[in-house]
Amino acid sequence: MTPQATQGRSVVLVGAGNVATHLGRALQETGCEVRAVYSRSEASARVLAAELGTRLMTDLADLPDADLFLLSVKDDALPGVAAQLCPRHPGSLFAHTAGSVPMSLFGGLARRYGVIYPLQTFSRQRRMDISFVPLFVEASDAAALAALTDLARSLSRYVVEMDSATRRQMHLSAVFVCNFVNHLYALGEQIMDRCGLPFDLLLPLIDETARKVHELSPRRAQTGPAVRGDKAVMDAQTAMIGDPDMRELYRMMCKSIEKISRQ
Amino acid sequence: MTPQATQGRSVVLVGAGNVATHLGRALQETGCEVRAVYSRSEASARVLAAELGTRLMTDLADLPDADLFLLSVKDDALPGVAAQLCPRHPGSLFAHTAGSVPMSLFGGLARRYGVIYPLQTFSRQRRMDISFVPLFVEASDAAALAALTDLARSLSRYVVEMDSATRRQMHLSAVFVCNFVNHLYALGEQIMDRCGLPFDLLLPLIDETARKVHELSPRRAQTGPAVRGDKAVMDAQTAMIGDPDMRELYRMMCKSIEKISRQ
Repeated sequence: MTPQATQGRSVVLVGAGNVATHLGRALQETGCEVRAVYSRSEASARVLAAELGTRLMTDLADLPDADLFLLSVKDDALPGVAAQLCPRHPGSLFAHTAGSVPMSLFGGLARRYGVIYPLQTFSRQRRMDISFVPLFVEASDAAALAALTDLARSLSRYVVEMDSATRRQMHLSAVFVCNFVNHLYALGEQIMDRCGLPFDLLLPLIDETARKVHELSPRRAQTGPAVRGDKAVMDAQTAMIGDPDMRELYRMMCKSIEKISRQ
Repeated sequence: MTPQATQGRSVVLVGAGNVATHLGRALQETGCEVRAVYSRSEASARVLAAELGTRLMTDLADLPDADLFLLSVKDDALPGVAAQLCPRHPGSLFAHTAGSVPMSLFGGLARRYGVIYPLQTFSRQRRMDISFVPLFVEASDAAALAALTDLARSLSRYVVEMDSATRRQMHLSAVFVCNFVNHLYALGEQIMDRCGLPFDLLLPLIDETARKVHELSPRRAQTGPAVRGDKAVMDAQTAMIGDPDMRELYRMMCKSIEKISRQ
């Protein structure tokens, strides 16, 4: 791929989940030709293919050739898909989008390969401006790195080279600050639901909690009963939680807050 | 207190922590006279008193009279402070600002009393526009409720009446979506630190995670290995975590996500 972004280049989207949907849309917007969307079964793939005006393919053996194959399937499906797909397209560049899967997945299967990992949470229902999503790239050789970096730069203003071992650590951080955080929102909603309160009452608090760590380190930003050592509140709140798993989670979080505040 | 906001009214701030600091500033800005700041020891109290141009008092017995005594001390110090203070000022209105402490704390001690609970996370270092902070009020009688509601409305555009039992539940939700969420940010930072990555790389993800739940319910917004049932990633990530408490927390969060996604 040349520095002239993705104009005139072609891609096949392998997978039709949240990441494939958002990257596929963005690639097409930058002028990239999406030659096909591959998905074994999902109904959502039909929607994505229709939106992008391209073919939905359900057999890896039938895929057209393309400059780039972008693999955004579940992590545990990646080895099988790569093994079937790569040898059929020896001249193409292959990249996966997974945080925790090493680039070496492609070793011995493809000649030119790499990773484009978007550090973001994608939901199909929400439009997303990819230009603000940090993209982390890695590639098998200098030419592949240049090609993937150019592609990434055509999509986002934050493009960083990162090796597989570091990316795996960053992905773990992301699970904590995004997936687990969202789950705490869900537990908060459950408590609000049970006393008939709208979840929306919590939104100013949720927003400020996120905004604060733009200015203060999370350790300095910590507030609440656990960091104050307010045992009376912690005991009372533990007793209020009916669900034993949630009660145990409450205890562990308090313990972990107290631990980090002593470090 | 009349509907003419707090102009010409007087308040004594009992406590000089984050909540007292932010409410004290906001009250003074609306024209309320802050007659004194009480704190037994904290150096931060000296800073607050100086900022507000008022006296720092360290003995409850010395406090001047005021229309309102606003008690923002630690939950477990509230009963003792109320017991000493209320009988000395029989004509005053008393309010505490605690989420988990019932209004009945003042029962038998004061004639007119209530609660103003701000649902927000306050850090001394961050300026805060109180007008966007939801305030939850409760009072001993209709006149006290009117007075506290007027005061609250002079500070914020979101003022809601709420009883002690409901407020306690909402405070528990707040601990999940704010205090525990911030702690997950701190754990994410710890992982980033260990591989030499700046925490700031996570900010776009943190922001989007918070923004998403303005549009989608947290349950629908959930992404990541646990909700996908991606056991390979979960096993690999569990193995990456060196600290046993953090590893256990990871396992519990995944289990809790899987549980809520099945409901």
